[in-house]
Amino acid sequence: MKFLLLPHVPRQDKPDHDQLRELVEYAVLAEEWGFDAYGIGERHDRPAVSSAPPVLLSHIAARTSTIRLFTAVTTLGLLDPLRAFEDYSTLDSLSGGRLDLVIGKGAYPRSSQLFGVTPENQWERLQENYELFRRLWTEKNVTWEGRLGRSLQNAEALPRPSRKHLRIWHGSGSSKSSADFAARHGDPVFSSNGSGPIGRYADLIQYYRERFTAYGHDPRRARVGSGTGGYFGARTSQEAIAKYRPVFEARLAVNRTFDGGSISYETVEDWIENSSVLVGSPQQIIDKVIGQHERLGHELLHVHVDGEVLDRADYLATLELFFSEIAPVLRRELPSRPLDGGH
Amino acid sequence: MKFLLLPHVPRQDKPDHDQLRELVEYAVLAEEWGFDAYGIGERHDRPAVSSAPPVLLSHIAARTSTIRLFTAVTTLGLLDPLRAFEDYSTLDSLSGGRLDLVIGKGAYPRSSQLFGVTPENQWERLQENYELFRRLWTEKNVTWEGRLGRSLQNAEALPRPSRKHLRIWHGSGSSKSSADFAARHGDPVFSSNGSGPIGRYADLIQYYRERFTAYGHDPRRARVGSGTGGYFGARTSQEAIAKYRPVFEARLAVNRTFDGGSISYETVEDWIENSSVLVGSPQQIIDKVIGQHERLGHELLHVHVDGEVLDRADYLATLELFFSEIAPVLRRELPSRPLDGGH
Repeated sequence: MKFLLLPHVPRQDKPDHDQLRELVEYAVLAEEWGFDAYGIGERHDRPAVSSAPPVLLSHIAARTSTIRLFTAVTTLGLLDPLRAFEDYSTLDSLSGGRLDLVIGKGAYPRSSQLFGVTPENQWERLQENYELFRRLWTEKNVTWEGRLGRSLQNAEALPRPSRKHLRIWHGSGSSKSSADFAARHGDPVFSSNGSGPIGRYADLIQYYRERFTAYGHDPRRARVGSGTGGYFGARTSQEAIAKYRPVFEARLAVNRTFDGGSISYETVEDWIENSSVLVGSPQQIIDKVIGQHERLGHELLHVHVDGEVLDRADYLATLELFFSEIAPVLRRELPSRPLDGGH
Repeated sequence: MKFLLLPHVPRQDKPDHDQLRELVEYAVLAEEWGFDAYGIGERHDRPAVSSAPPVLLSHIAARTSTIRLFTAVTTLGLLDPLRAFEDYSTLDSLSGGRLDLVIGKGAYPRSSQLFGVTPENQWERLQENYELFRRLWTEKNVTWEGRLGRSLQNAEALPRPSRKHLRIWHGSGSSKSSADFAARHGDPVFSSNGSGPIGRYADLIQYYRERFTAYGHDPRRARVGSGTGGYFGARTSQEAIAKYRPVFEARLAVNRTFDGGSISYETVEDWIENSSVLVGSPQQIIDKVIGQHERLGHELLHVHVDGEVLDRADYLATLELFFSEIAPVLRRELPSRPLDGGH
């Protein structure tokens, strides 16, 4: 198993520039702790401040040397594919080939609205932009007439990438179409494995693997990453629940402000028992991840601590615990392939 | 006088990713040598590889600590102003407020074509995008209906900047309208002071200063930066001309491939004698800059060595000479105000 830290600035009651610098600091710590990858999500509305992941990750690339740099996710449907190529190709070169993209439609309507993207056209935009982005990466001379208005004539997109193949993961929360799209292109998928029952995510992954083979790809090249409903570990399950309870309450409150908010659990105990969230002692968390792995077969686990109401000290302590007590066991029990090296 | 290094990768017969890394390396060197600022131009066609200045400058920001980071220029008319804001606000925060923008229409038709910008609409786009960019920087809640199709409803662009005011210079090669536009907004201008007769640039700067006052701004707040036709200094004028001759020949050859190529000089001696280029011994260059300063009153000098046919050793040596022999005298003779601190 490999581990991707998706950071969350604890207690966001500070200026945006301090939050940005904290995100850089956590990347440096994540590399020290031994995380394999660090992920910055593209968001254009609060509470996030990471509206420009390539700019942020490029800074992080200069402060780190081995950790892989993920976007989690890049809302590629909101971007001009040529500009996205320019940004990410520059970042990949500057980081010495440490970039992995995770692309998705994005779950935040306000972000999409800012760029004129609607629920009706977001999927078409994501697909078309993916296809053009891929061509710009692999081909030196691209002519393109898109259905969405983008056109190029014999364009050489610069800088030319140092790697022939960039790994692009497809965020796949609930739609068969994105799993099919990833399979068709021989790409890996990233399951949100969010607050729904795990069977739903497992079915989708199974579908992805079937389609992967059906499209003629070697099934051993299928790759799966997975999120969870969050992580909060402590020495004992009692301590974990006590410290996590206000996190759950805060999340529930935020969730209620969304249309279609997805948390249908009323108590923290119910949530811990019946969702994918990783809360408890190290052994409880190890057991739960192994159980999830039996269903999903994922090689990369996205670790995320909801930070809104946590003190910084608690935030850092639980991540350190993950690396000292949980990750070593999971690495041993659940082997995986290297992340780098393209396909 | 302050000094801005606009780098140029010598001998571009290397992969794009090596050129990018060289641009980072020169920024680190520029800070060591004592340059006040380092500028990356936005270009989307060869021979340049810097299509994503915010990504490149963000990496440089992590490798440096005091040098100011310029874009020279940002072709703001080709960008979505909201994305440009997101990129540059992120960069400014990560760099601790070290960003200055220089904006311009850009002189490269191929770059513009890639983004659907034409000679007919480029000026309108640049103006409108500037106005929206400024509002996004200073106002937390922006509603906008642009003439070019961009619309926003109560948008809070993120991350919120750490500085209230970002200095935006207006690249001003030959047009009165850009000088007037800069003056209207109380912004500084950057004169290309290119291959034309200096009187033309001096007239434009004079016009800018008049308009600056006419718009009700304190004339002491007007600021001018200036380029030149290039720099190549050596211990003696004979050595400088000998080493610079192939640089001139190469530049002339490239120039002939452009529509409206602007170099009308046939010999290197004529070019050195009658254009703004800085080629010669340290004393010759000092005298020439002082002469230009009498005409333009600029506080910031953009230093640029055409590198196409230079060895790396010659490229670095002439920049070192600039800093050891030329800059100290010019700093003493031509005082200027600090670059940082907004307006």
